[in-house]
Amino acid sequence: MALIVQKYGGTSVGSVERIGAVADRILKCHQDGHQLIVVVSAMSGETNRLIGLARALTSQPSPRELDVLVSTGEQVSMALLTMALHSRGIDALSLKGSQVAITTDSVHSKARIQSIDDRRLRAELDQGKVVVVAGFQGVDQNGETTTLGRGGSDTSAVALAAAVNAQECQIYTDVDGVYTTDPRVVDGAQRLDRITFEEMLEMASMGSKVLQLRSVEFAGKYQVPLRVLSSFKEGPGTLIKMDEDDVMEAPTIAGIAFNRDEAKLTVIGVPDTPGIAYQILGPVGEANIEVDVILQNVGDEGKTDFTFTVSRNDLEKAEVILESRIAELGALEWRSDSKIAKVSVVGVGMRSHAGVAANMFKALADVGVNIQMISTSEIKISVIIEEKFLELAVRTLHSAFGLDAVEAGDAGD
Amino acid sequence: MALIVQKYGGTSVGSVERIGAVADRILKCHQDGHQLIVVVSAMSGETNRLIGLARALTSQPSPRELDVLVSTGEQVSMALLTMALHSRGIDALSLKGSQVAITTDSVHSKARIQSIDDRRLRAELDQGKVVVVAGFQGVDQNGETTTLGRGGSDTSAVALAAAVNAQECQIYTDVDGVYTTDPRVVDGAQRLDRITFEEMLEMASMGSKVLQLRSVEFAGKYQVPLRVLSSFKEGPGTLIKMDEDDVMEAPTIAGIAFNRDEAKLTVIGVPDTPGIAYQILGPVGEANIEVDVILQNVGDEGKTDFTFTVSRNDLEKAEVILESRIAELGALEWRSDSKIAKVSVVGVGMRSHAGVAANMFKALADVGVNIQMISTSEIKISVIIEEKFLELAVRTLHSAFGLDAVEAGDAGD
Repeated sequence: MALIVQKYGGTSVGSVERIGAVADRILKCHQDGHQLIVVVSAMSGETNRLIGLARALTSQPSPRELDVLVSTGEQVSMALLTMALHSRGIDALSLKGSQVAITTDSVHSKARIQSIDDRRLRAELDQGKVVVVAGFQGVDQNGETTTLGRGGSDTSAVALAAAVNAQECQIYTDVDGVYTTDPRVVDGAQRLDRITFEEMLEMASMGSKVLQLRSVEFAGKYQVPLRVLSSFKEGPGTLIKMDEDDVMEAPTIAGIAFNRDEAKLTVIGVPDTPGIAYQILGPVGEANIEVDVILQNVGDEGKTDFTFTVSRNDLEKAEVILESRIAELGALEWRSDSKIAKVSVVGVGMRSHAGVAANMFKALADVGVNIQMISTSEIKISVIIEEKFLELAVRTLHSAFGLDAVEAGDAGD
Repeated sequence: MALIVQKYGGTSVGSVERIGAVADRILKCHQDGHQLIVVVSAMSGETNRLIGLARALTSQPSPRELDVLVSTGEQVSMALLTMALHSRGIDALSLKGSQVAITTDSVHSKARIQSIDDRRLRAELDQGKVVVVAGFQGVDQNGETTTLGRGGSDTSAVALAAAVNAQECQIYTDVDGVYTTDPRVVDGAQRLDRITFEEMLEMASMGSKVLQLRSVEFAGKYQVPLRVLSSFKEGPGTLIKMDEDDVMEAPTIAGIAFNRDEAKLTVIGVPDTPGIAYQILGPVGEANIEVDVILQNVGDEGKTDFTFTVSRNDLEKAEVILESRIAELGALEWRSDSKIAKVSVVGVGMRSHAGVAANMFKALADVGVNIQMISTSEIKISVIIEEKFLELAVRTLHSAFGLDAVEAGDAGD
């Protein structure tokens, strides 16, 4: 008998029929003898409906009242799912964030969990009950309703799993696992049986948006084994866990991630002096623009070129900032390019294997893809390329690192 | 400066436009210098939508979970109204039943209020805030969400008014007051400026369903002046308060109430022995059938006829019970009639005035309406008549007791 936390997202509980299907799945797990805490999101569309009502009344709804408003979405789901469980003969009860209690700080709409009281949870589980908990919501020390920010139900689930020391935290979603790359780009993309937290973080931040990033960090920090599964399709999903010895035997590369949503800015001919990076990026950061890849070329005659990438949405804002700073910086000019994309090879195994970077660059060169920028971390190598080469680059690398379905198991470094 | 509790029903907050109109009304009252607690119902249709979702999942939803589900409706309204107040520059905040706290017993879906903590309310009011409270909901001693039963927001408002000793509890609804009778039946029906609690109870129970009966009882018990007003139309509405001296000068009769939803059952030739009423009505009550008028004729040769009325919905169930008991009762036969209606003359003044009954019977006889049954209380005289005479009887009595608009003030006894 295991203690399992399951989380069902908005699509999984999007209609009474789907809620019924979730109840059937829980019934099976319950019959297998497991103890279950189930975390639910609002029915898909509900949160947007509620926010729409608020926006129709005011352009700047109070964060406190917005939390009171949107937290009703999860309450509706949890009550409905609990009823569906009752109708299948399962003893179940629902608990709001405040009833658990999931205590957070008081930052409405993006509260952080401070502590979870596991006494009520354990008492109900010990009585043989399935406990259904509203995701996304908590309560601060003054009894005010708070929310964790959109997508926060994943974080609720992981935090609950950590609090009760669950064997596994299962995130049911509309995909059946984490893939070696986007199956829409590469036909041979394969579902991974397992992946490490670090790899998952790199994959998730690159647009393989299966899980909310924060929940993966949280799971890694508290060493909660996470499993991503489909609500609609049977299967083992993908297990995300610590980088243990047995994982070391896994292929070097976990997958190929990519991101189209990048734009590049280059400041040309800036004085190559200490602090120049801060002088350029300081104002950008203050404008809440997130910077991804940063590259400073080796200086030549006291001048250097400084390049960084931002999200395409922020390009125009960043351009305005550079334009206003260019004289002050003593730079010659600035340029921007939104027709770029980032492709990354991700794998915890590359720590201990040489040659991954070389293989990557050779494979891209062989098909004529020019690399504009390179950025590396311990478990990831990213390149910025022209956007039109994105699909070609992803397919080439997926194949070069032995990730294609037909070649499964043949991966080498 | 007065402390006022206002309650807005589902129709009054049925859309963002209407919520805006309610906010405008509150703004005006706030600018007049009054302290305000505002109780809101769920947006019209919302409670039914939620119950519909539950029914799609199970025919017997758990009362606990149903309370969790439907209590979200008022939370949505209170958050939206508070946002609308903010956008008008009013300092306001919303409080759930649990946040007030409104403590109830643990009878889900029809909980009774046990106590209201006025400390938070007073603290917020003292800071100049308008406090918006979710109607219909409370919390039991274990922190479980409870609801007061449908229409319970009126009760919430009255209980809050009693707890903070408000000068007035204003119930905003879709009618602009209590009328002498149904304006759809009598053109000359007039809005009453004031009415006593007792008269209101008799009027309400007869189908003038302006206020939930329980809230009127509650208001009477705690001597909270109640005012019924329209959300959509300016006007003073109708003030419901204690029978004070100045009210004694009011016309004898407050209004003419009626009810079409009645059916009559007669047991003929039952032995005229003690306990026969219980033998007949006991099984009826056990089947949760409410009995209204009860009449036992004077016995003749040890036999008597026993007649009672029930709601038409319950007629068939009552007939089955009588059929199964007829032999046991030693009765000759039973008969039923669903083509009846009840008309009542209501007025606290009739306590001290003779002749009301005589006037009523004469007026009906003059227009040829035959009276089948008569039932009287201290402030009401009801007659059961053939349904087809209902409108004629109501108009006749409305006129006979001087209630018609053109004859206003000419009422005599």
